[in-house]
Order: sequence, then C-alpha cells, then structure tokens
Amino acid sequence: MKLWLTTMIAATTIAIGQPAQASKPELNNDLAYKLVESLTVEVGPRLAGSEADARAVAWAEQKFRQLGFDKVWTEPFTMQYWERGNASLRVEAPFNQALVLTALGGSVGTPFDGITSQVVMFDNLQQLQQANPAEVKDKIVFINQTLRKDIRGSFYGQVVGARAQGAVEAAKLGAKAIIIRSVGTSNNRFAHTGIMRYSEDVPRIPAAAISVPDAMQLSKMLAIHPETNLSLHMKNNLPGEVTSHNVIAEITGSKRPDEIVLIGAHIDSWDEGTGALDDGAGVGLVMATAALLKQQKPERTIRVVLFGNEEGGLIGARAYAAHHAAELKNHVFASESDFGAGRIWRFDTGFGEQALAFAAELQQDLKHLGIEAGSNTASGGPDVSVLKAQGVPVASLQQDGTDYFDFHHTPNDTLDKIDPAALQQNLKAWLIMTSKIANSNVDLRK
Amino acid sequence: MKLWLTTMIAATTIAIGQPAQASKPELNNDLAYKLVESLTVEVGPRLAGSEADARAVAWAEQKFRQLGFDKVWTEPFTMQYWERGNASLRVEAPFNQALVLTALGGSVGTPFDGITSQVVMFDNLQQLQQANPAEVKDKIVFINQTLRKDIRGSFYGQVVGARAQGAVEAAKLGAKAIIIRSVGTSNNRFAHTGIMRYSEDVPRIPAAAISVPDAMQLSKMLAIHPETNLSLHMKNNLPGEVTSHNVIAEITGSKRPDEIVLIGAHIDSWDEGTGALDDGAGVGLVMATAALLKQQKPERTIRVVLFGNEEGGLIGARAYAAHHAAELKNHVFASESDFGAGRIWRFDTGFGEQALAFAAELQQDLKHLGIEAGSNTASGGPDVSVLKAQGVPVASLQQDGTDYFDFHHTPNDTLDKIDPAALQQNLKAWLIMTSKIANSNVDLRK
Ligand SMILES: [Zn+2]
Ligand SMILES: [Zn+2]
Ligand SMILES: [Zn+2]
Ligand SMILES: [Zn+2]
Repeated sequence: MKLWLTTMIAATTIAIGQPAQASKPELNNDLAYKLVESLTVEVGPRLAGSEADARAVAWAEQKFRQLGFDKVWTEPFTMQYWERGNASLRVEAPFNQALVLTALGGSVGTPFDGITSQVVMFDNLQQLQQANPAEVKDKIVFINQTLRKDIRGSFYGQVVGARAQGAVEAAKLGAKAIIIRSVGTSNNRFAHTGIMRYSEDVPRIPAAAISVPDAMQLSKMLAIHPETNLSLHMKNNLPGEVTSHNVIAEITGSKRPDEIVLIGAHIDSWDEGTGALDDGAGVGLVMATAALLKQQKPERTIRVVLFGNEEGGLIGARAYAAHHAAELKNHVFASESDFGAGRIWRFDTGFGEQALAFAAELQQDLKHLGIEAGSNTASGGPDVSVLKAQGVPVASLQQDGTDYFDFHHTPNDTLDKIDPAALQQNLKAWLIMTSKIANSNVDLRK
Repeated sequence: MKLWLTTMIAATTIAIGQPAQASKPELNNDLAYKLVESLTVEVGPRLAGSEADARAVAWAEQKFRQLGFDKVWTEPFTMQYWERGNASLRVEAPFNQALVLTALGGSVGTPFDGITSQVVMFDNLQQLQQANPAEVKDKIVFINQTLRKDIRGSFYGQVVGARAQGAVEAAKLGAKAIIIRSVGTSNNRFAHTGIMRYSEDVPRIPAAAISVPDAMQLSKMLAIHPETNLSLHMKNNLPGEVTSHNVIAEITGSKRPDEIVLIGAHIDSWDEGTGALDDGAGVGLVMATAALLKQQKPERTIRVVLFGNEEGGLIGARAYAAHHAAELKNHVFASESDFGAGRIWRFDTGFGEQALAFAAELQQDLKHLGIEAGSNTASGGPDVSVLKAQGVPVASLQQDGTDYFDFHHTPNDTLDKIDPAALQQNLKAWLIMTSKIANSNVDLRK
C-alpha cells in the first residue's frame, strides 16, 4: 500500500457534521486531490471501452482496496466502442488553410478521399431544421452557435443539441457532413468533443466540431467568399461491442448495513485531455469521502459507484440500474460529483416532502462553507439521474461551473486546471452531507 | 480596390504630433485591425518558404497598391526550407498515454520506427551542460524549465536557450533526442514551437517541445517511476533551398525623398497559429501608419519593409541589409513592431547624443497615450536590430508583453487574441512617432 494513502487517512482528524465546532482545527486533507492526481498521471485519458479504461478500472479497484474499503467489486456491461482516428479540415482556395477540429464521439469517418464541398452556415439547430433542402443538399453544414458562460452551465443544454442531433437533421436535408462551433466557452484553439447520435432511418454523415477561433475564422471567410469549400478527412474506428465495467466499493454500515447511501462519479473520460475535471475530480471526491468516513463507522452502508461510459450516454448507469433493480428500494440516497472542481456554491435536494426538514438541517450544516440553500429539484448528477427516475432520493452539491466549459471535453482538461483549495472545500461538503445521511434514519423518500 | 480601404483612409481626420490639440476629435481608425484581419483570415499561417508565404507576399503587394503607396516591390532571398510533419510522443508502460508536442523549427525527424528510450530530466540548459555523459547517453533529454511572465518578456531570453541550443548540448553527451518544456507562460495544452539550431560537428538529433501541462505531467511520472520510457515519432521535411521575399513599399518624401524612414514588421509566421500577434499585428500597424500619413505629404520617404523569414533567424533582414548596404547611410531611422498587440507602455530610442533632445520631444508627444519615457538602448526590433548593427538610428515603441507568451508560437495565436482598442493605441503612437521623424530634419545619428 502506498504510504501517502495510509498516512493521510490515519493523520486526519475529521470534525464532520459539527459546524458549531467550526473553530476547531479544520479538515486539512488532500486525499481527493492525491487520488485525481494519481488517476490522471498514472492512467490519463480513459475512453470507455479502451485499454486505458480497463487500466482505470484496475486502478480504482486497487485504490479502493488500499483505502480499506470493506467490499470492492466490478460489474461488467457491454457497449458500442468508438475510437478517434486522424482528422483534418482544410479551407480550399482562395483561403487555403487548416482549421482545428475534433471528431464528435460516435461519428463515422469520411470516405478515404475525404469530403470536399461548399459550406452552408446556420446560427443554430432550429434554423437548420427550417432550411430549404436545396440550400443544404450535398453541402457541409456549419452550425455556428455561441455558448455563453454562467455559474450553472445553464446554456449548455440549449446549445448541445447541435452536437447531439445536428448530424441527423443535416442528413435529412441531404448534407454530406456537419461541423459545429465547439460547445465551449473559451477562445482557446481547442475543439470540444462529446457524444453525437444517429437515427436508424437517416444516412450517417460525419460530424466534427471546430474550435471557437476557427468558427470565427470560418464565418469571416464566408462573409467574404460565400462559396468557400472545405475538405474534410476523418478516420474513426467503430469496431462494435466491447465490455467495460462499473467499479463499486463499500464501507459496510455498522447498524443498518442493508441501507445504501450511494455516492458516485464516472470513471471514463474523453480521450484528448486527461479527464481531470471530467470526472477525475469527482472520482477523487467520492472515493476520499467514503474512505475518510470509515473510521466513523457509519450506520448505513456507504457505496461508492464509479460508473463506466457516462460519456457515451449513461451506459454504465443504465447497466447499474438494471442489475440492481431489485435492490434499488434499499438505496436510501444517491448523489454524484460530475461538474468539474469548482467550489460548491449551492445545495439542492430531491427528497420526499417529509424529509425537507432534514434537507434544511443539511443546508444549515453546509452554510459555513459558503453554500446556499437550493431547491428540491436536484437531478443528483447525470448517472444518478437514472436512479432518481427509479425513485431513489438524490441531492446535488452544485459546483461553480463558470469556467467548466473552458476546459471540458478538450485536450485542456488536465490536472493543473484543478484548484486544490476548491477541491478541499468540495471534500468538506461531501463529508458533511454523506456523514449526516449515513448516520441518520430519516427516510428521504417520504 | 476594396471599399473599406478607400473609405477608411478618406474618412480619417488625423491630428498627429499635435498633442496640444488632444481635445480635438480622436483618431478613430481601424485600418491596422482590418489589415491583420485580412491577412489572418485570407492567408492565415505563412511559414517562410511555403506556398502560403508566397500568398502572403502577394497579399501584401496588393494591399500596398490598394492603399496608394508610391512604390511597391519585392526582393528575393534564398533560405533553407523546413516543413513540419506528423509527430507523436507516447509515454510507455505503465503510464501509457500521449503527450502533446510540437517539433521545433528546423528539427530533423526520427527514424521511421521512432525513438524509444528512457528519459532524463534537467532543470535547465546549464544543468544539462554539466551532466555526466553516462547519465545522458542513448536517452531522451527533457529540459523542464519554467518561463515567468512580465511586461517586457524579460525571462524569454533566459529560457529560450534550451530551445535553440538544447539539441546540440544533448547530442554532445550522446542523447538520442531532446524534448523541452514549452517556452510559454500559459497552462493551456499547446506546445510552443520556434527555431532551433544544429552545429556542424555534432550529430543532429530530433528536438520537440511539449506543452506546460504535459511537462508537469511527465515530471510527476518521473517522480513515481524514474525509468519511464518515451516513444517519439516525428516526420519533418527539409527539402533544401527555396526563395522567399521581403516586401517593400514607399510613400515618397515630399522634400527629402532620399532620406528613408524605415518602419517594419515581419510577414512570415509559424505554421500552427494564424500569426495574428506574431506578427500580423505589426504588419497591420506599419502598413496603416504609412498609408494614413500619405495625405500629410511627409518630407522624408517612409519605407515600409515586411521582412521575410524572421522566424528562421532574421534571414530576410540580413538579405535586406546586404542588398541595401550602400544605401544604409540614407536610412535616417528604423523601427519594427514585433511583440504582439498589447498597449504601448514605454518608448525607447537608439539615437546619437545630440538627437536626445528630439527623443525627449517624442517622449512628450507620446505621453498622453500613457507611454513612459524609456532608455536610449532600444534594439528597434528583431529584424531592425540588423540595421542598428550597421549604424541606423532606431526606436522601440514597447508593447505590454505580459500575455504575449501565452499565445506566441502556438496554435492559439489567432485574431481573437487581439484587442482592437489596444491596437488602436499602438497605431496612434506609430503615427505620432513616424510623422514627427518623417517631417523633421534632425540627424538622429549624431
Ligand atoms: Zn462528466
Ligand atoms: Zn463529459
Ligand atoms: Zn515575431
Ligand atoms: Zn516569432
């Protein structure tokens, strides 16, 4: 066992759920940071289904054991594997130059000789949907929609449709390919990847994102020379079905071991960054939370679930929900960390009416960390939303996501983007929330 | 002729060299911005010697003519052409993952099968020079030196030696290749290119830079596992001698046409960004300055020189100095803009002693733009320093370079990084300086 793991846990004096004693020595523990550091340095990018994904799963199993969890296991699920190949996008004469692009996850490649065609630009998905097919036929569609910043990432949902559905909508109108402005908020010259979808009855056309500066560049070119042609080459591999795994570990409850408090994150990441913010930080936080609570002997079982293939569309979460269908009634709570590593600013619940007094106590306990009381409409996080749909009570420790989409799903999602102090504030909040729920007998469903 | 060019020049009321009338309408002219926009959008990256370089030269000739310059011509020079090929750098087991790299300009490629070897890390070039050859032999050298930020970019000169000389020093000790931490100040995951050198009597080994986050990543790996192996593949083309051009244009002096006031920038750029900051901004500024001064009928000739192949080592500047050797005595002044597009904060001269009273007047004229009086030790700029060495009086309108090395020589050097307001402040300063010198009869050599 690595020395830093033992030392860290042994040396930590944890004053959890005791905000009245805030004048006592503060939790000063960088276990969450050490874990995300280890995952990103020693494994790095871990695209679901890849060899690196398998190494990440092995890493997690080993770390859970080293951290003294009572049970550690993996659960297999099958998934469609997709792997990025080389890609290039060139503006043809008169403005010959390369644009920075990235394939969207799941996209087919181009024919070997590529696709060379005129571009037609739209402001958003809705405008494309209303286009005259004659304008679009045989062209490369370009959706040039800007993502605005805010603390909640509220605008992501409005813009990401172009990424997810754009290829289907463009292909319906006869387009040969689609490129979108990156669904990102920085003007760094990185393109932003993420999953896209096809539809059974619509031709599968290649889909890619170009960086924000390239989108600005291309729109300026089109203003001068509307007949600009692009040449797109993209090779991706879609080898079919492979097996990946959810990784699960428990601290067994001392009094009510069959009551499960689930805290989760996702173990997979996109392939171009090292998945530090998405979702290495979450992995570090939930692993550290449960490990640090072990010495408290929590009454309920704390189950950490590191979901596989979140990025491909909650594939591991759906497998978990199916596999544990009979047991979901024993899931008294679930929550996920998957919005980077910014400070937690708000606490939302998704509890039953009678449990709102308990929610208010939790809000009070979190207040000294600068965390506002939120609503009772929490999703619990992307993977956990699948459990919420099955009636599991959830909560969301909302992170400040103002800068999240500067880095998310780009090569720039690396360890140096994590502020250790902010991560520690996260860990304190996770410890308070998890400890209180794991030592309570309140039924959050009611 | 493009409408925006004519309109912009005709509509501009310029009150130059009249700071006493600062209450009059301000110069509000975005010709410099429009020019760098046109160059970066319509030509883009323009690596010296490439087809794009030739397009940039043609662009400049055409724009000079459209702007009404009295004379426009090009001067050929020969240069060694170097072209980037595909490159990849992978960490081998147990931490298998790709690192982001870029070939240094001029570097040879690797053998087809790449170079796989253990890494040996040094803090800086000096430490490498003092190393025991047994430590270095057959390894890949990694120089992990950090570049600090400041307004003058003062630290660049201290760090860039690893890039320029590292391959020679590593090869002397038997290394197979060298990688350096990017000579850049941002933690964006871009690697920073730039020219490197070989020495006649030392084996030519491949040289590349990795991004700052990758350098941090690699040093963390080495701390855990000092025997980490890297696998480097790099293909570059070094096809030999080609011809490139300096582009020159003049506004003929109305009273002393044989006295040349030279203002310059460099037309070439590295290949991964669009060369907006380095040196599209400079190109826009000096072209706009001379064009806007034409209506004033300056007494001396204003000669704009867009130097070719600055990046390869002032190749165009040396050709210019050689070709114009007999005429250099008529160069009464020279200055270059080549440090991005930040606000000018200081004015330095390189004049004769008797001309310092005139320098003081200039400092006074620039003061209302927030520009401090500087020293009399200006270089004049990288290309112009070649002319200074031949006795030509120079000055430097020093730009705020605090963020310059966040973008410089990376894919991130794009138009959106230019602040139009800062560029306009630059243009005002260039107009004041150039106008005053072009309408003076002071001998700046004395
Ligand atoms: Zn995520
Ligand atoms: Zn994600
Ligand atoms: Zn330059
Ligand atoms: Zn440069």
